[in-house]
Amino acid sequence: MKLGLGLYRHMLTDENFAFAKQCGCTHLVIHLADYYSNQIVTATDDKTNYGQAKALEPIWQADSMIALQKKAQSYGLTIYAIENFSPADWYDVLLDGPKREAQMEHLKEIIRNAGKAGIRSFGYNFSLAGVWGHQKERSGRGGAYGTCFDASRIKLDAPIPNGEIWNMTYRSNEQGVLAPITSAELWARLRRFLEEILPVAEESGVELALHPDDPPLEGLRGMPRLVYQPELYQNVIDISSSNANKLEFCMGSIQEMTHGNIYDAISQYAGQNRISYIHFRNVKGKVPKYQEVFVDDGDIDMPKALALLEQYGFDGVIIPDHTPEITCGAPWHAGMAYALGYMRAVLQMLDKQLS
Amino acid sequence: MKLGLGLYRHMLTDENFAFAKQCGCTHLVIHLADYYSNQIVTATDDKTNYGQAKALEPIWQADSMIALQKKAQSYGLTIYAIENFSPADWYDVLLDGPKREAQMEHLKEIIRNAGKAGIRSFGYNFSLAGVWGHQKERSGRGGAYGTCFDASRIKLDAPIPNGEIWNMTYRSNEQGVLAPITSAELWARLRRFLEEILPVAEESGVELALHPDDPPLEGLRGMPRLVYQPELYQNVIDISSSNANKLEFCMGSIQEMTHGNIYDAISQYAGQNRISYIHFRNVKGKVPKYQEVFVDDGDIDMPKALALLEQYGFDGVIIPDHTPEITCGAPWHAGMAYALGYMRAVLQMLDKQLS
Repeated sequence: MKLGLGLYRHMLTDENFAFAKQCGCTHLVIHLADYYSNQIVTATDDKTNYGQAKALEPIWQADSMIALQKKAQSYGLTIYAIENFSPADWYDVLLDGPKREAQMEHLKEIIRNAGKAGIRSFGYNFSLAGVWGHQKERSGRGGAYGTCFDASRIKLDAPIPNGEIWNMTYRSNEQGVLAPITSAELWARLRRFLEEILPVAEESGVELALHPDDPPLEGLRGMPRLVYQPELYQNVIDISSSNANKLEFCMGSIQEMTHGNIYDAISQYAGQNRISYIHFRNVKGKVPKYQEVFVDDGDIDMPKALALLEQYGFDGVIIPDHTPEITCGAPWHAGMAYALGYMRAVLQMLDKQLS
Repeated sequence: MKLGLGLYRHMLTDENFAFAKQCGCTHLVIHLADYYSNQIVTATDDKTNYGQAKALEPIWQADSMIALQKKAQSYGLTIYAIENFSPADWYDVLLDGPKREAQMEHLKEIIRNAGKAGIRSFGYNFSLAGVWGHQKERSGRGGAYGTCFDASRIKLDAPIPNGEIWNMTYRSNEQGVLAPITSAELWARLRRFLEEILPVAEESGVELALHPDDPPLEGLRGMPRLVYQPELYQNVIDISSSNANKLEFCMGSIQEMTHGNIYDAISQYAGQNRISYIHFRNVKGKVPKYQEVFVDDGDIDMPKALALLEQYGFDGVIIPDHTPEITCGAPWHAGMAYALGYMRAVLQMLDKQLS
């Protein structure tokens, strides 16, 4: 298992590459879609979203990705994955709209470019409503500022305005709202997407890795969702036996689901060698109400989970994803440093038990 | 074992109490001697020291300590130890000077006050040259800024000016330098100090905990040192069988010594139940040249060391002491968060193996 850090696009600086290396990381997972353009915004509702998504940005070109990979290597790091397409680059793939074919061609190009830059994995979140409806509260240990979800405090069925997808605006000043679709239709769109893109991914040496729904609800904003229970991940795997068809295994999201448990989910999916990388995140509670907590302080026994992954031979990257912020002059960094220190210790101790 | 954080006097703020709690600490070790009055200065030489030490400050009074303990408790924390007397409060105890008797009375009062505030341990550093001669370098992983020691780069025998002790100035504008003394004389002064103060400590429910020499050299600035090899700690213990006669076990300093090894030292001193609390710090190298590194990255197998301590039933506090700074907006905090996350994981995993 490899220790990594997730960096948003505005955080791809020399300082943060040094930060990751100092915290014991060997790998990075980077976001190139330009949500959170200068600060991390985790709480959104039907009044606010992650902002404007721009199509066809030059950052997705091969030379940009290769330059980023070289920069990472100069710090002794490897970019293991890119996480998420930009909503403006694939809204009609999600919506089955008129620009679908052109957008699919561009996505294939992005996957080829990732392959050229030696990036092994590409995370994606096949969702219309996206990550939505979280609040921020000082509910963590010691009053730490973290993300939580409480369905009773939001309007779960607030419709998605036209021109908005995955919680970002790709076209402004639209009228009306998105018409609901069935779950079968959404699964059909995922299947079509995977059947077209997986051959390109295989050729390029890149894995496609699906994030489960966050929050994991059967429906949100009038739209169906795909993986809101652990067993639904199996449907994704069953679409294609390609080695490129993988999971972006978010432990927090799976723990928030009402069926099964995280350990069985690890056994099931690591046992099939379908996990590309892991969001190592702990929570208390399940939908409809849960809160994100420090890695050592939640419902998941994190060392037990990592021991299971090791047992199944998982050799991909684990990243903290998000974590509560810690009160100081650099709350995000201190939160990540705490999580990474924890992860590093568990990995060292597991290594020793096995050797 | 209990997880703690060390806070310098200028850091005893609400923000840092919250920081400690968020990072999983249940205990604090605080410094009331006013070195580093607004920033942490770890590199000093014969031109610069830790600054001016003021005698008889009100912060040492019982009501001040009780107020601090209450404040800690309001954050779910307990102040476990105070570390170091102020040089201006005990220079003639160290020097066997004319104010010795009055200063001893004051030290006893401080110990009684600590007892009244429910503070279990009092760390001290019975040294004339003190902690001295370290440099700061970007020598840690990823260019992290840390403390190192390289005897070839400093004037080891630079004499101590009159008016200065333990690397601080207690009286300005003095002429001349301190006359060297023998090692036997320094041991005699320690013995006399302990014989007078231990009965008061026992009565007050407080342990006296001696820090080993840092850097651990036989002599420094023309003065002898006491505990510069692991076996010399035994001489301290043999002075008195009192339960109040304990060690402030600095793993980094012991690792830097040329004799023996840290695991045997843990077995020896934890086996005698003489460790009051622990500076959990990792290094690469030994005197005359070593550097402080991240807890997971040095010559000590830290999980092995903690497992040994657990095996011997050690139930005191472990704190990171210092650690390399991490590049971000709050380098000290991120460094501590990383170390504390690591320590927390090891403690959780040890707990599980034993249960």
